[in-house]
Amino acid sequence: MTESRILANPRADEAPPLSHAELEEQLRALGAQRYHSLHPFHRLLHGGELNRDQVRAWALNRYCYQAAIPIKDASLIARAEDRDLRRAWLQRILDHDGEGEGEGGIERWLRLTDGLDLPRSYVTSRRGALPATRFAVEAYVHFVRERSLLEAVASSLTELFSPGIISERVSGMLSNYSFISPQILSYFEKRLSQAPRDADFALDYVKRNAATRSQQQAVIDALSFKCDVLWAQLDALYFSYVEPGFVPPGAWTPGAEQA
Amino acid sequence: MTESRILANPRADEAPPLSHAELEEQLRALGAQRYHSLHPFHRLLHGGELNRDQVRAWALNRYCYQAAIPIKDASLIARAEDRDLRRAWLQRILDHDGEGEGEGGIERWLRLTDGLDLPRSYVTSRRGALPATRFAVEAYVHFVRERSLLEAVASSLTELFSPGIISERVSGMLSNYSFISPQILSYFEKRLSQAPRDADFALDYVKRNAATRSQQQAVIDALSFKCDVLWAQLDALYFSYVEPGFVPPGAWTPGAEQA
Repeated sequence: MTESRILANPRADEAPPLSHAELEEQLRALGAQRYHSLHPFHRLLHGGELNRDQVRAWALNRYCYQAAIPIKDASLIARAEDRDLRRAWLQRILDHDGEGEGEGGIERWLRLTDGLDLPRSYVTSRRGALPATRFAVEAYVHFVRERSLLEAVASSLTELFSPGIISERVSGMLSNYSFISPQILSYFEKRLSQAPRDADFALDYVKRNAATRSQQQAVIDALSFKCDVLWAQLDALYFSYVEPGFVPPGAWTPGAEQA
Repeated sequence: MTESRILANPRADEAPPLSHAELEEQLRALGAQRYHSLHPFHRLLHGGELNRDQVRAWALNRYCYQAAIPIKDASLIARAEDRDLRRAWLQRILDHDGEGEGEGGIERWLRLTDGLDLPRSYVTSRRGALPATRFAVEAYVHFVRERSLLEAVASSLTELFSPGIISERVSGMLSNYSFISPQILSYFEKRLSQAPRDADFALDYVKRNAATRSQQQAVIDALSFKCDVLWAQLDALYFSYVEPGFVPPGAWTPGAEQA
């Protein structure tokens, strides 16, 4: 909740900074332990063990995350004095919102929810999303607005790990679910090229800008926070739509369209 | 996420406002459907069906909520031009923080976690709390900071329903758990007199200040949001410590004190 200001100068008693390679190693080790590819919900999703309504619940809730990404990215740009950072980061907004009607990542996500017969107005209203999904997504937006710019950039680093999960997801979903086609998974195909470009930029940025050990720790903690944001969304899906299957009041209930 | 400004003047096509009695009736009906007294976790807690570690998980996580309350209340006061509102609201901060060492609601909550053998430094660090708990609590703080003042006040109205749950909780926990004593439940005894005073003030405030139907709807929606904040915390506890019992990476695990 509170902004922990990153020290501009190392304290005398502070450990020496990690090398760039060591920092990257620690970030990748964190991903190997905490990235949401390890969550039981994803194992069910990719392994074809969910029913269609459970896949619908996933797509409906994950829309909230997609919809917040350009807002998060604009919040970051709005705080950046560095024009190069702003220029590079702008591409993310273009990727998600697209340059016109029918374009962009959010539109491609809506093709997935279309393909799962979820009415667009219901999806975009977010009325049926789990409160826990909304709270996790909002925590991410507020983190980017309130923490240091270094931490805001670092919180995007989960994209280092996304090509792996996307490949597994696309092949797993196509081979396991008759109601999933390559067309409705077009979102992920684009992300396979966009995510590594974005992650490379952000990784380079945190290496260059985290000069002290405490700044480097803040970078690691920001990535850990972001892993929590992704993980918590799957916890909530599992709880409400897999086991024990308690849907909170007002959230989407399979069979009741509420659209 | 975005501030939805409440109209100062009713639109011509807007429904006429509810009477004060009708508004109160709708707020109470919402509580009867959505207040977290109805959550399965509370039924287990009060009915003596949790083990000691599950009660510890509840006390550890709920600390995050307690700790955020004065910050939430100070955020509200910081936005209020009305001196009477500020004066009345200040009592809430005094109640939670106390006027000195060893006083106040947060201190009394820590007597509960002390009594459950949770180290204070571990509890107050919030390191072991579930990410979903932190996200729900932060959503509440941000709601109070970002929405209209009317909505901020209205989001406190869950206290209309708290005396019922507190009485049930205290008697249920004392009769069912050998490790719970009246002393370590002293937090709740105080709240039995504080909550109705606070709720009466807030209810009167929203009746007087929600002049249009859309403002009244914003009041109802704010209470609904707050019910979601409370409910989501219990969903997360149930998921991680009751069924299916998946603890997210880094959160408190029974048996591993991590203090």
